[in-house]
Amino acid sequence: MDRIDRNAPIGVFDSGVGGLTVAREIIRQMPDERLVYFGDTARLPYGSKSRATVIRYSQQIIRFLKTRKVKAIVVACNTASAYALEAVERDSDIPVIGVIRAGARTAVHATQNGKIGIIGTVGTISSGIYTEVMKQLKPDIEVTGKACPLLVPLVEEGLLHDSVTDEIASRYLSELKGRYIDTLVLGCTHYPLPRSTIRRLMGEDVTLVNPAYETAMELKQLLAGSSLTCDPGLPEDGKYQFFVSDLAEKFTSFATSILPEEVKETRQINIEEF
Amino acid sequence: MDRIDRNAPIGVFDSGVGGLTVAREIIRQMPDERLVYFGDTARLPYGSKSRATVIRYSQQIIRFLKTRKVKAIVVACNTASAYALEAVERDSDIPVIGVIRAGARTAVHATQNGKIGIIGTVGTISSGIYTEVMKQLKPDIEVTGKACPLLVPLVEEGLLHDSVTDEIASRYLSELKGRYIDTLVLGCTHYPLPRSTIRRLMGEDVTLVNPAYETAMELKQLLAGSSLTCDPGLPEDGKYQFFVSDLAEKFTSFATSILPEEVKETRQINIEEF
Repeated sequence: MDRIDRNAPIGVFDSGVGGLTVAREIIRQMPDERLVYFGDTARLPYGSKSRATVIRYSQQIIRFLKTRKVKAIVVACNTASAYALEAVERDSDIPVIGVIRAGARTAVHATQNGKIGIIGTVGTISSGIYTEVMKQLKPDIEVTGKACPLLVPLVEEGLLHDSVTDEIASRYLSELKGRYIDTLVLGCTHYPLPRSTIRRLMGEDVTLVNPAYETAMELKQLLAGSSLTCDPGLPEDGKYQFFVSDLAEKFTSFATSILPEEVKETRQINIEEF
Repeated sequence: MDRIDRNAPIGVFDSGVGGLTVAREIIRQMPDERLVYFGDTARLPYGSKSRATVIRYSQQIIRFLKTRKVKAIVVACNTASAYALEAVERDSDIPVIGVIRAGARTAVHATQNGKIGIIGTVGTISSGIYTEVMKQLKPDIEVTGKACPLLVPLVEEGLLHDSVTDEIASRYLSELKGRYIDTLVLGCTHYPLPRSTIRRLMGEDVTLVNPAYETAMELKQLLAGSSLTCDPGLPEDGKYQFFVSDLAEKFTSFATSILPEEVKETRQINIEEF
């Protein structure tokens, strides 16, 4: 790996804005690092699309991120991590990490009673990947996955504190409550946003795992272990760069509300060309 | 137009399955005609994407449909009709019609008190196209548009008869009720599905306009007027052909539930190549 420039940016991608929760953790935990973010806003959502399509989209995005000379790539989307991580890791000469391994490991360490729940998109849950990774770590664990397809549109409509979101979330979570889980993985980057609703419905005794935090930790260790941590004090200019495939202005204002500093510019590209 | 083969199929496209309600009307009203349907399931939904992106997608789809030698194209998606019809009409050497003009005309004829409501996607409503077309037909008409972004995901989750859909629809429609409209355009191909909920919330005195029906009528007249009506008794084999950009099997079962006859096969193509 010695030909990788350690002062190059980290590439982060998602189907849209959700991965900004992962970018935020990276910025918090590694304030010296540079970052290139891509959100595939022209083709979102990924959660209801097929494995083959999500792999193809992820491969295009990785080709784009490589044109930005990134030193490592974070697949900050649970669905893309579930479906495409293996395929893109295989093709890549730089480190690629997803959000699932870190979240699964934390949940396995956190559980006391061995019963873990996961909520995510149809794609993430039907892939069975969280269960697979958790069972590799601890074979006798009991894992229950529940797809929550309406949570993302409800969050995107701003209905975070609303009786309708309460009702829908309550229906989704009732099955998990019936299984007496003590740990719940928020397996979609949007779900930290309605966290307080999920917390109230699940009760104080259930540990909520947010893979964004754990993924940033894993990335930090990976960079340190590969001598890819950047030098401190790099120029601030162009430190964080944002690209989308559609609706750049809308992204800019959303990103500003999520990240610790103002996002000045988002550039739009045609991802189909990559 | 004499070089167009009148026995060629009609091309119909939508972002997904919604346009099947238009295809169904065409099949009912013109049982002799052949049809090629394309649903852009790899990139749906269109309703929350930008004008430029929806135009680019529509142009790709029209290039694909032309490879199938269609004699006319129906843009069976309100958002694509709102954003892209003008651009694709300009480029096309065969007739192209959208769903908006027919729906707008019917609503203008139906209203008694001159107050019309339209519900649709964010794209359709923010384009202002329904209002523009209606005011051209009758300048003193009062038009109120209301974007209903959650209706499509609720319908797609099968919550047609559910308290949550009632609650969300009631919020969306309350503004229109406050305007005392007597005519409501169902300006998204998904909305005929929760029609009974909309009917109950709006009351019996409001006329509901479904552009699918009117669009098929307009197409029939257009074909007749251009001597493009097909000969009766063409071979049944391959009469109706279905293409999508993702999830062909899921589309096949949905299409079978919507259309008057069983859909045997849906073929998947990579629309980005067009």
